Amino acid sequence: MFERIDHIAIAVEDLDQAIRLYESLFELEVSHREFIDEYNVEVATVDLGGTAVELIEGRSDDSPIRRFVASRGAGLHHIAFVVDDIRKALEVLRAGGARLIDETPRRGKANSLVAFVHPKSTQGVLYELVELDSGHP
Amino acid sequence: MFERIDHIAIAVEDLDQAIRLYESLFELEVSHREFIDEYNVEVATVDLGGTAVELIEGRSDDSPIRRFVASRGAGLHHIAFVVDDIRKALEVLRAGGARLIDETPRRGKANSLVAFVHPKSTQGVLYELVELDSGHP
Repeated sequence: MFERIDHIAIAVEDLDQAIRLYESLFELEVSHREFIDEYNVEVATVDLGGTAVELIEGRSDDSPIRRFVASRGAGLHHIAFVVDDIRKALEVLRAGGARLIDETPRRGKANSLVAFVHPKSTQGVLYELVELDSGHP
Repeated sequence: MFERIDHIAIAVEDLDQAIRLYESLFELEVSHREFIDEYNVEVATVDLGGTAVELIEGRSDDSPIRRFVASRGAGLHHIAFVVDDIRKALEVLRAGGARLIDETPRRGKANSLVAFVHPKSTQGVLYELVELDSGHP
């Protein structure tokens, strides 16, 4: 059920500057850029053949990303698993004793559904589940 | 040159406990476990179809992993890129202005060569380069 990593998310202070770093130093391409209302963040995706790196900048002071950067500095933020059925995956994790940040899915980028699992129940790592847009209405 | 992520490394406090978490909660399999002299760490690899999760426990008080866990808590530690030629990759990064932790490669797990790039020059993210064992002596 949790076989594939969709992306690794990195909290950044300045998205433009971060994009320039990945383009110039690592010679990587930014394939997608989107503002996500639900979380008040702007996200740029660096595609790496299946698993992507997501650069995320918080766009308001109450954004979790901006709070993270303020308290710990920019850096690795979370890992996202792709799942076929996010509601079922949340059920499995809940049954396994995980503490869920989102009991029900929220809207993510590119029409995906997403939910976060609390790092307290996964030994310090914040995990996200992503059900990609099926294309159906 | 930096097109593929080999693994995402997670610093853990107790490797056995971490393995149990990934096996029971996420139903994943630990495919490889190894003690790495060079860094005084024990590593367990969770294979996820190309990109792996590496669980790392420091085995001495001067291990960077144990120091990381002591100061920031268990959690996401670094991202490793696979490269064909690690010396050439280090040269490219050095020319691009990156600060290198390892100016020359060191021995990693499964006979790989590895080198770390300082997070100060990559906006807070610790990056590792990995040249996998070619099988040649």
